[in-house]
Amino acid sequence: MYETRRLNDKSKVIVTAALTGAVTTKKDNPNLPTQPEEIAASALACCDAGASAVHIHVRDDNDAASMRFDKFEETVKLIRDAGSPLVLNLTSSGGQGFSWEERIHPFRELKPELASFDAGTMNWLNSVVFMNEPEFLELCGKEMIAAGVKPEIEIFDIGMLNTAKYYIRKGIIQEPAHFQLCLGAAGGMEATTENLLYLVNHLPEKCTWSAFGIGKGANEIMMAALALGGNVRVGLEDNVYYNKGQLAESNQQFVARVKRIVEELGKTVATPDEARSILGV
Amino acid sequence: MYETRRLNDKSKVIVTAALTGAVTTKKDNPNLPTQPEEIAASALACCDAGASAVHIHVRDDNDAASMRFDKFEETVKLIRDAGSPLVLNLTSSGGQGFSWEERIHPFRELKPELASFDAGTMNWLNSVVFMNEPEFLELCGKEMIAAGVKPEIEIFDIGMLNTAKYYIRKGIIQEPAHFQLCLGAAGGMEATTENLLYLVNHLPEKCTWSAFGIGKGANEIMMAALALGGNVRVGLEDNVYYNKGQLAESNQQFVARVKRIVEELGKTVATPDEARSILGV
Amino acid sequence: MYETRRLNDKSKVIVTAALTGAVTTKKDNPNLPTQPEEIAASALACCDAGASAVHIHVRDDNDAASMRFDKFEETVKLIRDAGSPLVLNLTSSGGQGFSWEERIHPFRELKPELASFDAGTMNWLNSVVFMNEPEFLELCGKEMIAAGVKPEIEIFDIGMLNTAKYYIRKGIIQEPAHFQLCLGAAGGMEATTENLLYLVNHLPEKCTWSAFGIGKGANEIMMAALALGGNVRVGLEDNVYYNKGQLAESNQQFVARVKRIVEELGKTVATPDEARSILGV
Amino acid sequence: MYETRRLNDKSKVIVTAALTGAVTTKKDNPNLPTQPEEIAASALACCDAGASAVHIHVRDDNDAASMRFDKFEETVKLIRDAGSPLVLNLTSSGGQGFSWEERIHPFRELKPELASFDAGTMNWLNSVVFMNEPEFLELCGKEMIAAGVKPEIEIFDIGMLNTAKYYIRKGIIQEPAHFQLCLGAAGGMEATTENLLYLVNHLPEKCTWSAFGIGKGANEIMMAALALGGNVRVGLEDNVYYNKGQLAESNQQFVARVKRIVEELGKTVATPDEARSILGV
Repeated sequence: MYETRRLNDKSKVIVTAALTGAVTTKKDNPNLPTQPEEIAASALACCDAGASAVHIHVRDDNDAASMRFDKFEETVKLIRDAGSPLVLNLTSSGGQGFSWEERIHPFRELKPELASFDAGTMNWLNSVVFMNEPEFLELCGKEMIAAGVKPEIEIFDIGMLNTAKYYIRKGIIQEPAHFQLCLGAAGGMEATTENLLYLVNHLPEKCTWSAFGIGKGANEIMMAALALGGNVRVGLEDNVYYNKGQLAESNQQFVARVKRIVEELGKTVATPDEARSILGV
Repeated sequence: MYETRRLNDKSKVIVTAALTGAVTTKKDNPNLPTQPEEIAASALACCDAGASAVHIHVRDDNDAASMRFDKFEETVKLIRDAGSPLVLNLTSSGGQGFSWEERIHPFRELKPELASFDAGTMNWLNSVVFMNEPEFLELCGKEMIAAGVKPEIEIFDIGMLNTAKYYIRKGIIQEPAHFQLCLGAAGGMEATTENLLYLVNHLPEKCTWSAFGIGKGANEIMMAALALGGNVRVGLEDNVYYNKGQLAESNQQFVARVKRIVEELGKTVATPDEARSILGV
Repeated sequence: MYETRRLNDKSKVIVTAALTGAVTTKKDNPNLPTQPEEIAASALACCDAGASAVHIHVRDDNDAASMRFDKFEETVKLIRDAGSPLVLNLTSSGGQGFSWEERIHPFRELKPELASFDAGTMNWLNSVVFMNEPEFLELCGKEMIAAGVKPEIEIFDIGMLNTAKYYIRKGIIQEPAHFQLCLGAAGGMEATTENLLYLVNHLPEKCTWSAFGIGKGANEIMMAALALGGNVRVGLEDNVYYNKGQLAESNQQFVARVKRIVEELGKTVATPDEARSILGV
Repeated sequence: MYETRRLNDKSKVIVTAALTGAVTTKKDNPNLPTQPEEIAASALACCDAGASAVHIHVRDDNDAASMRFDKFEETVKLIRDAGSPLVLNLTSSGGQGFSWEERIHPFRELKPELASFDAGTMNWLNSVVFMNEPEFLELCGKEMIAAGVKPEIEIFDIGMLNTAKYYIRKGIIQEPAHFQLCLGAAGGMEATTENLLYLVNHLPEKCTWSAFGIGKGANEIMMAALALGGNVRVGLEDNVYYNKGQLAESNQQFVARVKRIVEELGKTVATPDEARSILGV
């Protein structure tokens, strides 16, 4: 019998805070953390608010999108030195124009539990191409296995899901895989419940998944992901507004809300260690 | 362009408390209100907790399912005499074996804003037939128009939606119609996000809708309905458990939760008067 | 990984001719066979045209819908005596107002390979209730097992599919079950590819299925069922028109067309014996 | 009310033959036309078999994928000089590594009725990136408007549909747009009825559409597209096999089959002039 997938733990919800991203600026929202001290502080505040994991991008000294290793290193060190149990997830994209080595180096050296794996190439609508060439993806997958880092497979479209399944078949991604369903990106699938459900229905049998919506569909995806038994990602990378017309105060503001809603449903947010157990990292 | 319907007010959510129903007993949950004083008290408590509307069934002196007019009359009088602004919705089914006249009499005399209209006949799985013969539905629709009562069209399956559209085309139901999508009934569509979305995608262009899930899918449907911009129904008629393994304390406990979640999303629960405005009653 | 079900044999298509039905009249189409000699002759002609199976209703002496045993007996005898290998499928509904015994008697005595099992009760839109009470369904299922007759489960709506799954769980229907997806009935799901796909996606894992559309959606369902790897039912019971505006000449006209289309796809229509093997009857 | 889109002419089906493509070789199928005389001859044979349009790629002198203008010019001249009424559709991609000018030049000079417009960038799974950068798409759209060539928007994934809608809003593609839904490409959406339906359900309100499946899902998509009232593309570019295990003899073999199936449904294949009328070219 066909069933909408409920692959995740039924009573625990992994909440990931996407702290910074590559696109949003302090002009969009002055509360965006961009430098290591700020990012680490935001991570720790999210941990206190109940987050299971943080997804980390860094910026250069001018707050521009960056893959500078020293920035990653400093940020991760600050979080770890504070004794935080947070699951760490480092981006492997980071913006436009970075070399393969620049994209791989941070997770290879810093060995976070997770690193993002963008499972295909697409146009950011009318701006630039988000390049994730086949050769890069194959290299990236192999480097993650070598480093003991689990890919968080970012899916922006159906074809990327098919691509991820291909890499799973080839052993370049190991099962059970973990997916982040990214909806609402310009040029990708729109942030609708229908699109989320379509992706969830086509996931591999054995996997875990999380989802988020960028922009106006953010709350819809958060609610629909919780309806479907999914994990959720929130934060300033994806949304500068907390609700319509209301700028977000902080990353932890998003985390605290998800935690309250999850608890209304008789579930709990996974602690970082529970998240490790669910993800097998 | 095709879009998942968002037919309802985007910032206001109508919350209906289904207080009693025809099936649940005090043995299932001792907090179930069954007699007029109890039902009215529960309605008023729901109003205080933020409900927009109440859906009312009555029971006989032995708490069995009933369409006794005196019980409806007393219940409605108690609520109205208390000065409550609640939108009232009286059942027109009430259980098994009632005559057409017994089913119609309460709404015809008491003129609530809404009365339920069950848009077809089905098996309650392995128990009995839920009879809503074509002749009854036609009569019921005409009586509602004559009484100035708006039908809340209860939909348990796709065919009922097609049936409702037929009555709309025939003028037996007036547009914009108001739908209550009832998922999880034994013998009907299961309480899944996928089923809810399928129904919502096939609603008439101009309508308002609400949804609820019976039993284990209750929270999923509540969350998915909110994701999709729908109104929601909650209460002991549909669920004796508040969360898994936790008996509900009262109808207002459900109402208060929806209110909290709705407000987390930057929306508000419609006041009874706002609900009247949205529904055109 | 989720996949649209392809449960049927990939290279063989079972084609069932529904010869007469309960509703269509000779006024609608003078080529409709209504008396045993006509029905049997139509069955044999369908066999020659390539049909795997025939679904049989009978009429009384005035051509009205009927469950008269002598009519079934004569029809079946004529087909069998002609040495036809056709898989036989007798209706267990036959129209309105028949007793349970009248509905069960033909398949119990004549032991066709298949008999229809209508998995629920529904309104024929604005006319009458198509009654298939839970007690009847339970009895009917048990009688089919006792008689060695396989139910062809007719599904008009999602809830009926859930009901069928319930009877499978209870052992009242044995697995692998065989489904006939009936789309386009007034009061049921409409004859659209989308509805067909929705039903197919929710079938039990282990089953075989066929589909047909009544009226204007007939060709759409035939084509979509073939696209999805399903078996198909055709014939004057479901459609008096062969194509838009063109009255059908005979049941075999429909059969011959399906056969031609199936062969265009590099497949073949199952012979009656191949159909027996696929269905396990 | 939501309805599966039936945007195309209900009684006419535009059949496009995709003669050559960029990937298939004579080793895959020796009947593949690769040089201008062969391609033109295949086009004319398809026209005789009933095709409405041909989609043209060219090859260099070694049969490798090419955008050589002289090859396009010669091919088009041969078809036109033969007096063929075929609607002509020239590729604007042609394979890997061609300059924007090489991709645009053929349609700008030869002014076919249609030229392909690939509405986004994607990985051909594990081989290379199919580059259609935003700047190229904007340029390409403007050049098509300037040349009076209508884009046939090729869609391999949901995000490309959103991208196409963006260019429609910006006026870079004019309405009503014409879509070619390309399913089964490695790295794109798989060739399933479900994926086709999903795309069709999300098309702009006012458009025409056609579909095809690459490889094993080819017949499924042909049948499902016809079920949904769509136009269809067939030919050796997309499939070297006619049916499972059976190499195709020619492009016209595919065309003739679609024509036979279309006529079984009481419809006709659009003549080239009827296609021009439907497409507004």
